[in-house]
Amino acid sequence: MSEPRTIADVGEFGLIARITAALRPVDSTVVGPGDDAAVIACPDGRVVASTDLLLENRHFRRDWSTANDVGHKAAARNFADIVAMGAQPTSLLVGLAAPGELELTWIDGLVAGFAEESAEVGAAVVGGDVSAADLIVLSVTALGDLQGREPVRLSGARPGDIVAVTGRLGWAAAGYAVLSRGFRSPVQVVNAHRRPEPPYAEGVRAAELGATAMTDVSDGLVADLGNIAAASGVRIDLRKDALAPSPKLRDVSSALNADPLAWVLGGGDDYALVATFPNAVRLPSAWQVIGMVNEGSGVRVDGLRWGEGGHEHFR
Amino acid sequence: MSEPRTIADVGEFGLIARITAALRPVDSTVVGPGDDAAVIACPDGRVVASTDLLLENRHFRRDWSTANDVGHKAAARNFADIVAMGAQPTSLLVGLAAPGELELTWIDGLVAGFAEESAEVGAAVVGGDVSAADLIVLSVTALGDLQGREPVRLSGARPGDIVAVTGRLGWAAAGYAVLSRGFRSPVQVVNAHRRPEPPYAEGVRAAELGATAMTDVSDGLVADLGNIAAASGVRIDLRKDALAPSPKLRDVSSALNADPLAWVLGGGDDYALVATFPNAVRLPSAWQVIGMVNEGSGVRVDGLRWGEGGHEHFR
Repeated sequence: MSEPRTIADVGEFGLIARITAALRPVDSTVVGPGDDAAVIACPDGRVVASTDLLLENRHFRRDWSTANDVGHKAAARNFADIVAMGAQPTSLLVGLAAPGELELTWIDGLVAGFAEESAEVGAAVVGGDVSAADLIVLSVTALGDLQGREPVRLSGARPGDIVAVTGRLGWAAAGYAVLSRGFRSPVQVVNAHRRPEPPYAEGVRAAELGATAMTDVSDGLVADLGNIAAASGVRIDLRKDALAPSPKLRDVSSALNADPLAWVLGGGDDYALVATFPNAVRLPSAWQVIGMVNEGSGVRVDGLRWGEGGHEHFR
Repeated sequence: MSEPRTIADVGEFGLIARITAALRPVDSTVVGPGDDAAVIACPDGRVVASTDLLLENRHFRRDWSTANDVGHKAAARNFADIVAMGAQPTSLLVGLAAPGELELTWIDGLVAGFAEESAEVGAAVVGGDVSAADLIVLSVTALGDLQGREPVRLSGARPGDIVAVTGRLGWAAAGYAVLSRGFRSPVQVVNAHRRPEPPYAEGVRAAELGATAMTDVSDGLVADLGNIAAASGVRIDLRKDALAPSPKLRDVSSALNADPLAWVLGGGDDYALVATFPNAVRLPSAWQVIGMVNEGSGVRVDGLRWGEGGHEHFR
């Protein structure tokens, strides 16, 4: 019998065996893949959980990203939600639906991406589900532990707080713009779209520094800060001079005749962390102050409302 | 402006607001929907987690089941995995992808189904994700708490143990057979397919009674016991006389010229619980002894291998 090449060649149980063989437990993994359910340590006594559903050609494209990229990014966007609560990620559960003719090498790359991104943050893939489908569908659930800290919510920002960000803004949006025009470079922004690098360690650090509210930038800075403003009942005032696009973004934008500030303010998918802190907090150098919390509502940039911001599906 | 009718009429954020307005927290809900992630109490210090991906026309059909049925069943199959570990379900996270033209009444029914099934088991829907898609895709992740007990795994069955089952066997399979032939009755078996009723309370009870291994019957009794036999390194011997199909199943099977024992031994989706116990355990009346654990491998029925059993996707 020749070497199996596709999912159909190994079948459901062969696929599950192949995936689980590629996974390694971590200290928090009490029961890993293969039982009715996984069991994960949550020593805090509270578990933090976030879930996402990703569909081929809506959330990722196989001609733009490798399988490994897709796994990394699908894990990263969920881990970013966990660290945005000030928690330490512990585990990932992955649902995978795919056509029988999908190559096993693609699955191997995807699973490696999930496992590598998990390992980077100290977590493990602990369970999942596989199913047949006409297109690739991924569901990802990340869990995390608060380690005794209170969760940092959207609702805690107070007038007088400072607003600060860590991680990249606008890079993934620039990469998406480049790919949308049919180009494959500059590679720095294209790779930022393919494989975001959320500043994981800064989530716990922000919580320890006393962040009053925090979120990850997945829909765009203005849109995501809008969630904090709404939940906290405050206005957030950003300073445009603190959000000046980097030379690389300016270069890409002039080549594409695009507005780099629109990427910085409206681009998601870099999974930067943005948080509010009491004014007295001395922030580490990884965090950059970009504005203030005031009484009122909404988000302003140099006193003005900015564009519409964020994604809106279904329309 | 006229009353909104479809998802597209309310948009992503309107949809999220509509869904979360229909949800209620329970005692274990620390942070419910609306933040970057949910926070759920796990007083045991370990959390039990299971995930499933369900696609329209593969895992459910809108012409066979109502939206409410689909929500109930999608929740039930995940809660069954949690109780099969001997844990108490606490929460559900739901990913939903759907076409913009889907009616809001369908969404309302679905969400009510998730919420009702959660409430029945003492859990709550605590978070999720929505996205656009060409077909309806659901991802469901259930979490649970072990309440100080050790998880009941697949691997604990020992020669000399008894095998016992609680809940229905073969009813959902009979209902599926009825629907597949274009009929809509008898309603008892059709409803068993549409809305399973896992014996939730028996999972914790079995764990407290000292069950050595347990699983829920989702792929079929022989297939699921095969997982226990393989994980435990034992043979499981079932007695056919203890598995006699009920009169209702015999009636349906003769009308369809089908084998009712095939439904009992091979039918999934009723989410019965099957467990092994030390021989000395006195079982409550909800549990029926159906066999023994012996040295060896595989599952036998009156000493013989039975059919192939279980689902196999992708082929």
